Amino acid sequence: MLRWQPPLDDVAFLLGPWLRAGDDWKRIPRFATLDSDTAEAVLAEAGRFCAEVLAPLNAVGDVQGCRLVDGRVRTPDGFAQAYRRYVADGWPALARDPAWGGQGLPALLELAFTEMQAGANHAWTMYPGLLAGAVACLQAHASPDVQARFLPPLVGGEWLATMCLTEPQAGSDLSLLRTRAVPAADGSVRVTGAKVFISGGSQDLTPNIVHLVLARLPDAPPGTRGISLFVVPDVLEDGSRNGVFVDGLEHKMGLHGSATTALRFEGAVGWRVGEAHRGLPAMFVMMNAARLHAAMQGVAHAARASELAHAYAHQRRQMRAEPRMEPEQPADPIAAHPPIRHLLRCLRGWSEQMRAAGYWLGHLIDLHEHAPDADERRRAGMLVELLTPVAKAHFTECGHLLANRALQAFGGYGYVREYGIEQVVRDSRIAMIYEGSNEIQALDLLQRKLLADDGARLAVFCGECERVAAAAEAAGQSGPAAALRRLRRRLWSAFERVRAAAASDVSAPARVADSFLRATGQVLLAYACVRTVAVAGGSAGADAVERRERASWMLGELRLEFNAQLARLRATL
Amino acid sequence: MLRWQPPLDDVAFLLGPWLRAGDDWKRIPRFATLDSDTAEAVLAEAGRFCAEVLAPLNAVGDVQGCRLVDGRVRTPDGFAQAYRRYVADGWPALARDPAWGGQGLPALLELAFTEMQAGANHAWTMYPGLLAGAVACLQAHASPDVQARFLPPLVGGEWLATMCLTEPQAGSDLSLLRTRAVPAADGSVRVTGAKVFISGGSQDLTPNIVHLVLARLPDAPPGTRGISLFVVPDVLEDGSRNGVFVDGLEHKMGLHGSATTALRFEGAVGWRVGEAHRGLPAMFVMMNAARLHAAMQGVAHAARASELAHAYAHQRRQMRAEPRMEPEQPADPIAAHPPIRHLLRCLRGWSEQMRAAGYWLGHLIDLHEHAPDADERRRAGMLVELLTPVAKAHFTECGHLLANRALQAFGGYGYVREYGIEQVVRDSRIAMIYEGSNEIQALDLLQRKLLADDGARLAVFCGECERVAAAAEAAGQSGPAAALRRLRRRLWSAFERVRAAAASDVSAPARVADSFLRATGQVLLAYACVRTVAVAGGSAGADAVERRERASWMLGELRLEFNAQLARLRATL
Repeated sequence: MLRWQPPLDDVAFLLGPWLRAGDDWKRIPRFATLDSDTAEAVLAEAGRFCAEVLAPLNAVGDVQGCRLVDGRVRTPDGFAQAYRRYVADGWPALARDPAWGGQGLPALLELAFTEMQAGANHAWTMYPGLLAGAVACLQAHASPDVQARFLPPLVGGEWLATMCLTEPQAGSDLSLLRTRAVPAADGSVRVTGAKVFISGGSQDLTPNIVHLVLARLPDAPPGTRGISLFVVPDVLEDGSRNGVFVDGLEHKMGLHGSATTALRFEGAVGWRVGEAHRGLPAMFVMMNAARLHAAMQGVAHAARASELAHAYAHQRRQMRAEPRMEPEQPADPIAAHPPIRHLLRCLRGWSEQMRAAGYWLGHLIDLHEHAPDADERRRAGMLVELLTPVAKAHFTECGHLLANRALQAFGGYGYVREYGIEQVVRDSRIAMIYEGSNEIQALDLLQRKLLADDGARLAVFCGECERVAAAAEAAGQSGPAAALRRLRRRLWSAFERVRAAAASDVSAPARVADSFLRATGQVLLAYACVRTVAVAGGSAGADAVERRERASWMLGELRLEFNAQLARLRATL
Repeated sequence: MLRWQPPLDDVAFLLGPWLRAGDDWKRIPRFATLDSDTAEAVLAEAGRFCAEVLAPLNAVGDVQGCRLVDGRVRTPDGFAQAYRRYVADGWPALARDPAWGGQGLPALLELAFTEMQAGANHAWTMYPGLLAGAVACLQAHASPDVQARFLPPLVGGEWLATMCLTEPQAGSDLSLLRTRAVPAADGSVRVTGAKVFISGGSQDLTPNIVHLVLARLPDAPPGTRGISLFVVPDVLEDGSRNGVFVDGLEHKMGLHGSATTALRFEGAVGWRVGEAHRGLPAMFVMMNAARLHAAMQGVAHAARASELAHAYAHQRRQMRAEPRMEPEQPADPIAAHPPIRHLLRCLRGWSEQMRAAGYWLGHLIDLHEHAPDADERRRAGMLVELLTPVAKAHFTECGHLLANRALQAFGGYGYVREYGIEQVVRDSRIAMIYEGSNEIQALDLLQRKLLADDGARLAVFCGECERVAAAAEAAGQSGPAAALRRLRRRLWSAFERVRAAAASDVSAPARVADSFLRATGQVLLAYACVRTVAVAGGSAGADAVERRERASWMLGELRLEFNAQLARLRATL
């Protein structure tokens, strides 16, 4: 199987000319000492960890899967050692707050690292995947006492965290939650209920697991306004096991190395995080982080599929192409045949531009949290709010569908284990479902991020598109600039049509939400393309010219997809 | 898991008013004694076999998979017993020639049965799946001696057959085949070489397996014109094992219950079938049968996904819909939410119309082979030639993609075994690859079925579209009639554009072949929709009205898809 390699060329291009992240870091006290070279070096090291430690366990984990032994999860061979190395090397603390022992590096770097991990071994990544979100949630909402007890081991990664939302009857609809929390005399609570699809609900990587659990207090009103958040450790301070039991291990289509557990809480000791009945907003801190992680998993799957397909298509020879690519051989590489050539261009183009857009989102998070100027922080925050559901849904869908298309290039070899592509297809499928299904993201985008603020966030994004179009024009790239302007205008018109329809028909947004999200996703990627064209426009270097050509070509593909989504939107409005 | 049920309503509708198959059978001596009621009764019995014998083994087969024990394949528990029942009940002989002990029923019935089998248990179906093709191939091309030896046990299903084309270096490109056949003094040959991806290359269902093997004779010219076809039994007449060895068992994404083997032939005794160096055309008799089977597998997967999703979406309650569907419950069934409602309509609509088109193809095969009028036979043959690659590629792609979309309706439960949908997604994926990948079908359609005869076959199909449009008009359905006419005209114009481009650019067909096939597939389904509308148009019965409404609705969906494919075709031409 083709060795996984970190995308260091893209890292350099994106941190450097594309984002000019170093220029922004200089303006931000927390990052003032960080320059692009150092950041690149950190990510090169992160890439080495993924390539040397995680990637070799990917197929192993898929074949072995997890097992339940005496009620506890046994992870695949090597997973626990890899995690110990991850902790020893200090990776969990990368972007955590120095006040809690973190290294204080940008969220951008962590997101770039997330993509690498998911590309190398998505299943393994599920274990530490919720650490960042759990820490952010506790920092924002927990009492000093709870923070002091749980944050240090979580920041360092000595313990891991889970997110316990879903119950058998309550998936997308959290208002149906039934798990109960009964206050005890000492200020703690006793949690009782059943949670399903809990990633890493049990594992053999860490001595303790911190469960963040949504449950109802006795006086809770019904619905989502009666849900509180609690922290429930697997092991109590005195070393005894808490009342948290593994009821089962799911048999999944993919991610076999990740333990997806059904947990039963039976009078488990816990502590409230944040206000009573206000658990959902607190949990959303964690959810939003998880959504961006899922988006980067989509990027990772597309990128991995692209690499696998490129390697195979250049090595596999079948039939003659016009013109011949290797006349001295009995047949040409399938990469020379038009349908495969087109597929490879799509795989490369989407991976590159989704990665660019993902990095941009990561950088916007840093600007939102740390930019010195309040207006800059506000605008960055609006973009993050708008684009998080877009990236989560669109990138995970593209990641899976592209991997599935890539499989086709392998013929029969795609359907078997050998080249690893079918595992990418299976592993990538879950990202369209978890952390809020893609349909939920689409509703979130249209109702909470667009209709709720009458398009203010979308207007900020359209302004960014105009800015990048102007930059492309200044670099002599008026064609791509005009294409982006046209797309963003048509997106805005579509929003106005939906808004008008919603005024008289309450079900209109739900009918068109999926199409609208995809159309927005295509404009986001068009933005990334044109920004690439603008940045590479001035340069005559071979790498820049190729990037520009790929991005220009992809704009045409995006326009086709955008047209199809808009036609569907009009037909269903 | 939801029990699989045979689609007997559709069987009655399609054999009856849609196809009026009974009217045609009356005109054909071989089928003259068959009426629709008898045919329906046969399929009801076939459906019972699938529901009672095959369906219960579907999940078992997926979980257990096949094993190699002492160099032979052990199939999952129950598979062999089910096969014995299949033989005892006489199913293999259903549509075989009475001259060889067959029951002489229409190919249409066999194709309908094929769909049921694949819906109930695709993996199991792989074992008898090649029987019909092997028998047809031997009947058309083998010497009387070979026929006498191999046909009776194959017609009765006492032995099973494999199709040994692919070699490690030769998949889509059979010109690269290396397996050798050396003539022996007694007129037999000794076959030596390696074949991969051989379904049922070894199994424990039958005491003998008949391998149909493509190989080169010593004096063979290179390329595809130097390939001959041989019949190679697993066990020789004296009871000794032939030189056929299992080199391995593939670990596949799906179809775990089907043994996909790597076979090694080492001086295996065989006999030539058909002329020397003309093995490929002989094998195509078998391939074409296999392609139609694959098409019906696509129908089966879409239909199964549709049933699973309908059942789940009406039972799973999450969130409130507008308007409320079940106000007395804490939440509405997800079937009431617009995106799920749309998905369910798509699943139902595609399954129904693909099934109708598939039955039509089956009936056309019978007309092609048995119609009394030579011109009717010729025209039916042209339609079968044109539409076989379309149905194979388009239906298998739709089957897989629809199953994959259906999975989304299950949320997290879609990603785990419980409801069976993820198995449908995994099992259905192979049909896009095997029996000639969908890309090969697209090239076959455009180059051999359209450009090669300058559109004569397409013109026959367009004539059928006009005929059905006229019937719809006569039934008062002028809207759907006009829609079909417009689609078929635009398809013809697209063909003319491709033909013009191909005259000056040899690579043009390869660039647009996939889009062209999909567009043709959409017109084929539109044809089915409008024929449904025409048939149901006059009736006021609830079933007819609902069928008409579903078909009309689907026409709109098909138009959107058709437009998107034509836009892509124009952009890539």
